[in-house]
Amino acid sequence: MRVKGFSAAAVQAGIRYRDRLDLGLIYSDVPAVAAGAFTTNLVKAAPVLLDMERLRQGRAQAVLVNAGNANACTGERGMEVAVATAAMAARQLGIDEELVQVASTGVIGEQMATEPFARAMPELAGALSADGFDDLARAMMTTDTRPKTATATVFLDGVEVSVLGVAKGSGMIMPDMATMLCFVVTDAQIVFPVLRQIVKSGVDRSFNRITVDGDTSTNDTVLVMANGAAGNPWIDEENPEAARIFAGAVHAVFRELALKIVEDGEGATKLVTIRVTGGRDAESAMNAAQTIANSALVKTAFFGEDANWGRIIAALGRSGCVFSPDRVSISFDDVLMVQNGQGLGRAAEEAATAVLGQRHFTVTVDLGDGMETAEVYTCDLSVDYVKINADYRS
Amino acid sequence: MRVKGFSAAAVQAGIRYRDRLDLGLIYSDVPAVAAGAFTTNLVKAAPVLLDMERLRQGRAQAVLVNAGNANACTGERGMEVAVATAAMAARQLGIDEELVQVASTGVIGEQMATEPFARAMPELAGALSADGFDDLARAMMTTDTRPKTATATVFLDGVEVSVLGVAKGSGMIMPDMATMLCFVVTDAQIVFPVLRQIVKSGVDRSFNRITVDGDTSTNDTVLVMANGAAGNPWIDEENPEAARIFAGAVHAVFRELALKIVEDGEGATKLVTIRVTGGRDAESAMNAAQTIANSALVKTAFFGEDANWGRIIAALGRSGCVFSPDRVSISFDDVLMVQNGQGLGRAAEEAATAVLGQRHFTVTVDLGDGMETAEVYTCDLSVDYVKINADYRS
Repeated sequence: MRVKGFSAAAVQAGIRYRDRLDLGLIYSDVPAVAAGAFTTNLVKAAPVLLDMERLRQGRAQAVLVNAGNANACTGERGMEVAVATAAMAARQLGIDEELVQVASTGVIGEQMATEPFARAMPELAGALSADGFDDLARAMMTTDTRPKTATATVFLDGVEVSVLGVAKGSGMIMPDMATMLCFVVTDAQIVFPVLRQIVKSGVDRSFNRITVDGDTSTNDTVLVMANGAAGNPWIDEENPEAARIFAGAVHAVFRELALKIVEDGEGATKLVTIRVTGGRDAESAMNAAQTIANSALVKTAFFGEDANWGRIIAALGRSGCVFSPDRVSISFDDVLMVQNGQGLGRAAEEAATAVLGQRHFTVTVDLGDGMETAEVYTCDLSVDYVKINADYRS
Repeated sequence: MRVKGFSAAAVQAGIRYRDRLDLGLIYSDVPAVAAGAFTTNLVKAAPVLLDMERLRQGRAQAVLVNAGNANACTGERGMEVAVATAAMAARQLGIDEELVQVASTGVIGEQMATEPFARAMPELAGALSADGFDDLARAMMTTDTRPKTATATVFLDGVEVSVLGVAKGSGMIMPDMATMLCFVVTDAQIVFPVLRQIVKSGVDRSFNRITVDGDTSTNDTVLVMANGAAGNPWIDEENPEAARIFAGAVHAVFRELALKIVEDGEGATKLVTIRVTGGRDAESAMNAAQTIANSALVKTAFFGEDANWGRIIAALGRSGCVFSPDRVSISFDDVLMVQNGQGLGRAAEEAATAVLGQRHFTVTVDLGDGMETAEVYTCDLSVDYVKINADYRS
């Protein structure tokens, strides 16, 4: 899919890897309205700090993204590098450098050389194309096994508006943003405050609901750019219906990318939805869902296709969520496995084990204590997760 | 080592496993002063609930412990089983059943048959011996690869007092007590309030400072029994010096057992001390240490012997601990790897990598922000951890 007025490209810059795309660029023909969400980690990488500062103006025209080096924990020199690489892109594109966002993913704590950027910039800008987003998605990959894109189209007052997103991420993922980069471009015409609100509520329901390993990164970035090329009537506070429809499209793209990230979690073989229902309050239901979704013992049981509900109950019990153990029920998809806190025996277990053999399934934990619900998406913890992370830098 | 007036035994009862010890008994010739600490998990197994109730009297004379079934999430029937097995032991030993403590470890959520207990009880009681604690330590094992015992001896007013502890535990370990059973017997003569205080402060500094996988169990139990057979002058509030010396012995046994549990963590190849110094307050220093110690990415890096300090910084950043990233330093044993938030380069990294090749090492994270210190003991996350936990019930 193409989005009017946007182009992208990627090249082999040799930042760390050889013979693969590792540097990408997104460009809008005109300055776009832009809103973002960034890591909540106290330690923020230089590009994140720079982007947050620049996004205060609510506008951006280009994004320069590299893999191989996260430019995190690199001090003042790291910030100089972020500013310098953004300036190179601005010069090449002939735009204001304040309109360039930068994003980096890869190893933490190593200074990033600017020479590969300088060498690659002419080729990169020259390759910009409306069809370049697939290449861009590939250039962002680290331990990802596949590029991740998602699209949506809506009609606003009869005008077609397109939304295209690319993302990367597979480890260090946790509900709080993680080593996860997501860029969404749209030709919608929209005012900044409404776009910002749509990004915020969308992140809460998508990227902040996924977990691979409970770790959060220094570099997480979600950035949405809207350049208005579709020519739809302005989406603003006076036009809540258009805002609602457009938000639906953006949120669908967010959600699809978020689930693709979990599904491609490091070493993951299964995508599991943890749904907690019957909670007394929303916070404790979410807390319970997150504790289950992050439990190493629960996740290894998923990997082993073992309907080990005892580990789920044990995780629930340490979550801080207040509930009555003798009212809890647990289902794997439609198979009720635990009722009133007790297992339903061999036949239920066999049926549940069959559910665990699937690539996707939902674990529903009903606390039997109220009306609140929470949902988190996780994956299993496999032998390959350990192998990938033990060997990452070697 | 023997402890006056205490005996122990273990037999093959066939509760779940075949051809191995799985049922053990500790017996004191006289009712002993007893104090315990139990899981903080909201979901508590039947034996834990029974023990907590019975320990209110501050006395116990026997402990019946089994492996293979945790008798957790088993409802009213599970409590009946716990009471019934304790009554069998009491009848066999000719003591008050209220003086029998029970402990179970193994699979959660399956009803436990009482027949194996009934069949084994005469042989078990008949085998009681002052030298039986090694067998007992073996009978408690689940995924443990070796039995865990520790001893200490002190002189109180010229009288020799012995302390002997046995423990099991290797997964589901987290600072809050975990599937961990620990029984300590001593011939000290001590009043209940002082013993209770010594147990509480000791648990805080030992078992509550270790983590294998961040999960906590429904069955954790620490129980200390003191039968007074040594004939030392009473340890009580009037005798703080004796209490101090005796506490030192109990705490040394706790600490030795706690470290043995981490060292035998499921799949662990390394025992790692995480020490956070320079914290502004004690709580956030502890929070930082625990977050680092539980990070899957940090632990897989230990397994891979990769001095990946970026992951340590990232874990620190999401811990909730307030600090200045540009003041942080990180050392692996004596090797300074990070100063003022930045890596010290290739030579430091090579020296740090050598440290990570050891079986034991300490990671010191100095926040440079105050005087508070916290220490947590963890292990690496290995391929075998996943294999063990994916296959546990099969």
